Amino acid sequence: MKCLIIAAGKGSRLQQRGDSKPLIPILGVPLLERVIRTAMEAGAEEFYVVTGYQGDRMRGFLERLAERLAIRITPLVNDDWEKGNGLSVLKAREVLHEPFLLLMADHLFDPHLARALTVYALPDGEIALAVDDDTRNPLVDLEDVTRVKVKDGKVRDIGKGLADFNGFDTGVFLCSSAIFGALEQCRDKDGDTTLSGAVRVLANEGRAKAVPASGFWIDVDDPVAFRKAEKALLSRLRDKSSDGPVSRYLNRPISLLFSRHLVNLSITPNQISLFSFLCSLLGAGLFALGGYPALLAGGVLAQFASIIDGCDGEVARLKYQSSDFGGWFDAVLDRYADAFLLFGLTWHLLAAEVSGLVIFIGFMAIIGSFMLSYTADKYDNLMRERIRAGGRAGLRMGRDVRVFLIFLGAAANLVLPVLVVIAVAMNLEVLRRVKVARDG
Amino acid sequence: MKCLIIAAGKGSRLQQRGDSKPLIPILGVPLLERVIRTAMEAGAEEFYVVTGYQGDRMRGFLERLAERLAIRITPLVNDDWEKGNGLSVLKAREVLHEPFLLLMADHLFDPHLARALTVYALPDGEIALAVDDDTRNPLVDLEDVTRVKVKDGKVRDIGKGLADFNGFDTGVFLCSSAIFGALEQCRDKDGDTTLSGAVRVLANEGRAKAVPASGFWIDVDDPVAFRKAEKALLSRLRDKSSDGPVSRYLNRPISLLFSRHLVNLSITPNQISLFSFLCSLLGAGLFALGGYPALLAGGVLAQFASIIDGCDGEVARLKYQSSDFGGWFDAVLDRYADAFLLFGLTWHLLAAEVSGLVIFIGFMAIIGSFMLSYTADKYDNLMRERIRAGGRAGLRMGRDVRVFLIFLGAAANLVLPVLVVIAVAMNLEVLRRVKVARDG
Repeated sequence: MKCLIIAAGKGSRLQQRGDSKPLIPILGVPLLERVIRTAMEAGAEEFYVVTGYQGDRMRGFLERLAERLAIRITPLVNDDWEKGNGLSVLKAREVLHEPFLLLMADHLFDPHLARALTVYALPDGEIALAVDDDTRNPLVDLEDVTRVKVKDGKVRDIGKGLADFNGFDTGVFLCSSAIFGALEQCRDKDGDTTLSGAVRVLANEGRAKAVPASGFWIDVDDPVAFRKAEKALLSRLRDKSSDGPVSRYLNRPISLLFSRHLVNLSITPNQISLFSFLCSLLGAGLFALGGYPALLAGGVLAQFASIIDGCDGEVARLKYQSSDFGGWFDAVLDRYADAFLLFGLTWHLLAAEVSGLVIFIGFMAIIGSFMLSYTADKYDNLMRERIRAGGRAGLRMGRDVRVFLIFLGAAANLVLPVLVVIAVAMNLEVLRRVKVARDG
Repeated sequence: MKCLIIAAGKGSRLQQRGDSKPLIPILGVPLLERVIRTAMEAGAEEFYVVTGYQGDRMRGFLERLAERLAIRITPLVNDDWEKGNGLSVLKAREVLHEPFLLLMADHLFDPHLARALTVYALPDGEIALAVDDDTRNPLVDLEDVTRVKVKDGKVRDIGKGLADFNGFDTGVFLCSSAIFGALEQCRDKDGDTTLSGAVRVLANEGRAKAVPASGFWIDVDDPVAFRKAEKALLSRLRDKSSDGPVSRYLNRPISLLFSRHLVNLSITPNQISLFSFLCSLLGAGLFALGGYPALLAGGVLAQFASIIDGCDGEVARLKYQSSDFGGWFDAVLDRYADAFLLFGLTWHLLAAEVSGLVIFIGFMAIIGSFMLSYTADKYDNLMRERIRAGGRAGLRMGRDVRVFLIFLGAAANLVLPVLVVIAVAMNLEVLRRVKVARDG
């Protein structure tokens, strides 16, 4: 599937953030790159980008991006970028013949919006528009949005000032070459050079299909929309299904605050994983030092490390830097961190008084904690699914809860009780999993 | 694919092992069941079994087997079972029309022998025979085997006394209904009621294809062949690619000796896993007791447990009792066993003298040992493959080597050095794996 992106305008309302809107980074990644990445996720493979304002700079960026992502990006030039955006679309008339995705460089959206269009078998001579039917969508600026009137699955009317409307133009289109004829007709007859004008022409002839699209999309047009977009991109990281309760209500909200700034630095997710691990190690060292002040400091550091541990994945997802190695490396470091923290607590108790019982409890806490991760991750997918399926009734005691318990134990100076709780709860949970997996 | 199995004969040369040959268990599983299971692995789905001698008993067995394996088995009756085996094949004339697998209840074989036939598109009016072209196959009784002369991919002649031959009849056939006509012709014209006679008739007309088949097969005809078959079935368990050096050269040969007898008891593989774990636990307890005699006994018990740990998988494979849960359960118990053994050794040293260094070394040995399993098993397949691909140069220090080191350390009363070696080697290997996975 080919994809045409309109990136010729100036975007004067966002001048404070950067001179050329498509190149303004949002959470570390330029708007235009986000649009291209999203289109790739939706199945687009070859790109045509219409450049205009600051065209040379944009074309240099596109060349580097094409190399980095190993895709083909052909820049088109529209010197009339100050006129309507329809003229930009017309620049592709000679190169695009089969149905293509048409996107705006400043409209961010969820890939499934575009996927809903790409799976649609477009009849010749028609176009399809992803229409947001949620007229109360809080991400929409009602004053500025292009409104759409849909009836029987077809666009009946489109325009900014529409009084009678029941949806919004998301800026995500699937076009046949019919769009070019409509643009020319519109330009030559009415002097209207906007894309909306051409869509209205096709709509009047019943040739503009409306594909209902709910889900994230936003027109990043001014500073208010920019902040809304940032917030929306961040909040999409919250719904990680594997998050435990401490992650969800404590760690994640804080780590997102950090990630929001980390994305602007040239720090890799793996470096964040390593930093979090070193914090845990330092925390464990403080535990082992003995004495309440060091214990408290170690507990705080451990909890801080657990929060930072969320940032690696967040930054990776925000900056498209996720990797198989990254996830694996993070898990390996987490296991070492867990072991060292529990060992530090054990040592803390032994420093005060040597006791075989303490050594044994520390040992049981360490293997329990390990086995909980091992039984969850052990390669056999079937077992993992069985345990997950039977897991509802079980203990949800992931790493987030474990470290939080360690923090609480350190803060309250109740180290032995916390070790006992971890040792007992973790190993009992392993036993339960064995039972669940057997009865599967 | 349908499958016809000839199980009507008496098998008088194996009378000492059981009255009805097809029902004689070999390594815990009746010959006929092994043939049916192998045919299932090769793709057969519906079975017809010709019964004769002790027919009622056989049909009772088949009924229970069909229920146990949830397959369809139709028994056919041949009261002339004392005559040639061709008469047994003829009993299927009314029920089998499309191409079917024809097998002997006393011929064991590797499923890929039958699979080589089932993928063959049999022309109408022909049959195909899997021919073993290794005329020096040590599993073959040259005096008793049916010899075959193959030329240009066709069977030219077949018979026990053949002087000019270049292959053996494996007893694995793919037949069209042409076989029935040939059997009748043979019986009515020459009074020959053997299957070989009918094959010879088809061979003379160029209608018997020879499919070359190398690999395990054996005609379990007499006590010598029976022992050979047992040995061959056991030795096929040796080539487990994941076996480390201690497994391969020490544990596996001994565990196979045990398994050979265990298959005849009604002990499940999971019970064996649990028994091995309890031995390790007892060994760890002996370590912790302190003193050299207990240390030595613990070491011997640990190594014994490691040997027994091979039996669960062997018995499971020999008795078709492998399960996803079994493999997972074994791995979980192994991790606990490893941890307890190393903790026992640490405690042994602490019983003599309390030392922070010893506690730390014991801790590092335990997490190193855990992490080695974790990094190998961690669910991400890609990482596992990368590590494996880069693993040639790495340390092959699986569980077999680890426990053997523990045994040696205990026997030589060199507990601290062994803990140090394990702590250092395991964690260095984890570090190497991280590097390999990153560069992957």
